[in-house]
Amino acid sequence: MTGVALCLFLYVGDVAADDGLPDPGMSIEPGRTALVVTDPQNDFLSPDGVTWGVVGKNVTENKTVENIDALFETAKDVGMPVFISPHYYYPHDHRWKMEGTLEALMHSIGMFDREDALSLDGFEGSGADWLEQYKRYIDDGKTVVTSPHKVYGPESNDLVLQLRKAGISKIVLAGMSANLCTESHMRELVEQGFEVYVAYDATAAAQLPKWDGYSAAMTNYRMISNHVAPTSVAVKEIRKAYK
Amino acid sequence: MTGVALCLFLYVGDVAADDGLPDPGMSIEPGRTALVVTDPQNDFLSPDGVTWGVVGKNVTENKTVENIDALFETAKDVGMPVFISPHYYYPHDHRWKMEGTLEALMHSIGMFDREDALSLDGFEGSGADWLEQYKRYIDDGKTVVTSPHKVYGPESNDLVLQLRKAGISKIVLAGMSANLCTESHMRELVEQGFEVYVAYDATAAAQLPKWDGYSAAMTNYRMISNHVAPTSVAVKEIRKAYK
Amino acid sequence: MTGVALCLFLYVGDVAADDGLPDPGMSIEPGRTALVVTDPQNDFLSPDGVTWGVVGKNVTENKTVENIDALFETAKDVGMPVFISPHYYYPHDHRWKMEGTLEALMHSIGMFDREDALSLDGFEGSGADWLEQYKRYIDDGKTVVTSPHKVYGPESNDLVLQLRKAGISKIVLAGMSANLCTESHMRELVEQGFEVYVAYDATAAAQLPKWDGYSAAMTNYRMISNHVAPTSVAVKEIRKAYK
Amino acid sequence: MTGVALCLFLYVGDVAADDGLPDPGMSIEPGRTALVVTDPQNDFLSPDGVTWGVVGKNVTENKTVENIDALFETAKDVGMPVFISPHYYYPHDHRWKMEGTLEALMHSIGMFDREDALSLDGFEGSGADWLEQYKRYIDDGKTVVTSPHKVYGPESNDLVLQLRKAGISKIVLAGMSANLCTESHMRELVEQGFEVYVAYDATAAAQLPKWDGYSAAMTNYRMISNHVAPTSVAVKEIRKAYK
Repeated sequence: MTGVALCLFLYVGDVAADDGLPDPGMSIEPGRTALVVTDPQNDFLSPDGVTWGVVGKNVTENKTVENIDALFETAKDVGMPVFISPHYYYPHDHRWKMEGTLEALMHSIGMFDREDALSLDGFEGSGADWLEQYKRYIDDGKTVVTSPHKVYGPESNDLVLQLRKAGISKIVLAGMSANLCTESHMRELVEQGFEVYVAYDATAAAQLPKWDGYSAAMTNYRMISNHVAPTSVAVKEIRKAYK
Repeated sequence: MTGVALCLFLYVGDVAADDGLPDPGMSIEPGRTALVVTDPQNDFLSPDGVTWGVVGKNVTENKTVENIDALFETAKDVGMPVFISPHYYYPHDHRWKMEGTLEALMHSIGMFDREDALSLDGFEGSGADWLEQYKRYIDDGKTVVTSPHKVYGPESNDLVLQLRKAGISKIVLAGMSANLCTESHMRELVEQGFEVYVAYDATAAAQLPKWDGYSAAMTNYRMISNHVAPTSVAVKEIRKAYK
Repeated sequence: MTGVALCLFLYVGDVAADDGLPDPGMSIEPGRTALVVTDPQNDFLSPDGVTWGVVGKNVTENKTVENIDALFETAKDVGMPVFISPHYYYPHDHRWKMEGTLEALMHSIGMFDREDALSLDGFEGSGADWLEQYKRYIDDGKTVVTSPHKVYGPESNDLVLQLRKAGISKIVLAGMSANLCTESHMRELVEQGFEVYVAYDATAAAQLPKWDGYSAAMTNYRMISNHVAPTSVAVKEIRKAYK
Repeated sequence: MTGVALCLFLYVGDVAADDGLPDPGMSIEPGRTALVVTDPQNDFLSPDGVTWGVVGKNVTENKTVENIDALFETAKDVGMPVFISPHYYYPHDHRWKMEGTLEALMHSIGMFDREDALSLDGFEGSGADWLEQYKRYIDDGKTVVTSPHKVYGPESNDLVLQLRKAGISKIVLAGMSANLCTESHMRELVEQGFEVYVAYDATAAAQLPKWDGYSAAMTNYRMISNHVAPTSVAVKEIRKAYK
């Protein structure tokens, strides 16, 4: 038999308005708030990346690349701390005895592959490298780049510790991909007692004929996080908080 | 502005067929596999529960109550271990200084409320109590009832430890609600290196005009877990494995 | 062959003085600091408890019961939040397929046993119950009693979440037993980015001819935590901070 | 005031004999058992390392370098999986707002410092690099090197996930330093439901006039793990299991 899905989503402006749910909100508080970006890497965000065929349309429609850039620029401009949680796979990860569906897929297409944690051979410009236009933000000597997460969430890296050691308890969240790493980061950060504000168009997801990752993420962002808003609003609220 | 969502989902039979994704599958292996059920409690599954207005239609359509029952019955019949991860809120949880959207909502409607971890006054038959028809399975002296999870996932209870101490590494997952506790359990179990098989009609979710929790969960189950199947298939595979 | 241990420890006053290690210190900051007490239960602290034979001498020498009481009284008096992380074992815990040395021992002597998470039959006054003199503090409607930890640390309960949801990032730590649950709580809280101040005589440990749990704990408290001090000093610093 | 500690420890042969504690034991089971080594790095094990002044005597007495080597050699010879959990600090770690005592000390002496997670400049032969004689084991293309732990335990890296993804549930544990990273790994692995066998002379600790880290570790290894044995016995048991 079959599954039928017909979906049309247009997310513009205040997606939370009149939807029957409360909106706890999250005030941007300098000194306790950070920008967290998941997987700002070529394999998701560059037309040359291995997933462009399934995420490219959504990245383009959402202006994801531009929106993540706007968040980076704003955070750096006002002095809000920035944390990057990257995704890398090493040869030993390809020997795992058990893998979920998209773990299997990511491994089969060589996504985020690096030669070794202690080797940078072939890294520069690869699918695992940062999108070129973000390097000026990430390589400024201030951005905290955590160890790689290995499935989708930060359970297997040092993101939570780095945030706590910096006195951070509130997160503006962006990055790739919407319903996988970004959502798993949102969920785990909420489980760890952080407040999370999702910039919902500074992300995008794989969209397949039967499965729309972006629609799934939007639903869960709205239900689970403290607040969702488009990047244009997030940028304004960050600038206002730091005045 | 506004968000527009028009969705029609009919999930029948093999939802994974021809969807362009691999299917790693998960063999049911006696001695290493357990049934995990999240929140089999009145507030989700009884017409008297506080969430029936938003989940009742989906519970009814999916035959969620009957499907969870079929999984309980099958597991008990063949001797497969069963673990329950319940959801309780105590008065001190209502004093939290930060809450995500549905945490705020659950607290405001008194969902899963208990008087105290060390008091059972008023518990019997309350929204926090087990659905009456499941008590014969849960109270049989063999089922492991973990401590309550407090947000959505098992990060704040002993589920992972109890599974490992029982030698379990593979999970058949069911329970409520689809995109919240059930999905957060799926995600955390995968992060912890378990294989997860989701019985996708032994769950259901809140469905609001703008946000369909069940559709979101189906997408993420399919993309993240090792395998999805309807309860009827799961029951057959469990029985076959134990022959 | 054999292990020989000859140890004489007298901990009085400033144990950190002149020991060659830095002392980061921890300021008590109202609103962000809490008292966390592990296992203030009869099986550790009452002469009728199952471990009194190995911990009683150390409990008596340290005046552990009185010191924990002094911390409770001080915290309640000034309004500092108090969190209890208890230890309970249920019948299903006795069916674990793997146990470390003292897990095996605790189970064999029936330590912290309760009939069921959802039963209080026989709980009152049992080894798992609070030491009688602490009930006025713990049952005041304000103290947060977390779910039980199941091995030694708070990894399997909701302590970290409850602290974060209350805005707490600094801990004054006390309770039983020094090198097991108290130390595992210290270690995990430090891993989670909390600052920890150990009241080193508001705890005690099993002392066996070959193995001195208290000496081990003192070494690790001093090396790992942010600050150690006797209860008398901790009480003064708490009162001063809240003036 | 002062703390007085006079300790003489000689650990030879079966330290667990006649000590009044049960010995659960741990059978070495091919396919489910791995060797885990913490911090086999110059800053702990080389006379040129920054901690040699406080750990060198214990490393020499225990023959720690030789014992870790014997475990590596045995594991590689029989085909037992090997996992390394290293310790690295990056410039951003030096900006943490809160540090425990030895975290502060490690940072002040530049221990385990690297220039950046994405830079290997100056790494070769530095204090953060592997002890030279272990490189043939670690760089063989089979050993799994996890992300660095950042405090003492594996909570902030992917060790637990990598072990689970390899089907491992039993650990032979060795490495540096005894009461800090090695013990925190033991504790966390036990919390995660692993069985742990500590090779107690394939480790060593800082020993200060007032604080003996090795004595503390021995006490806690014996009380918490499943089994302790000298390397000579561990090597024999591994070889026997793989015959």
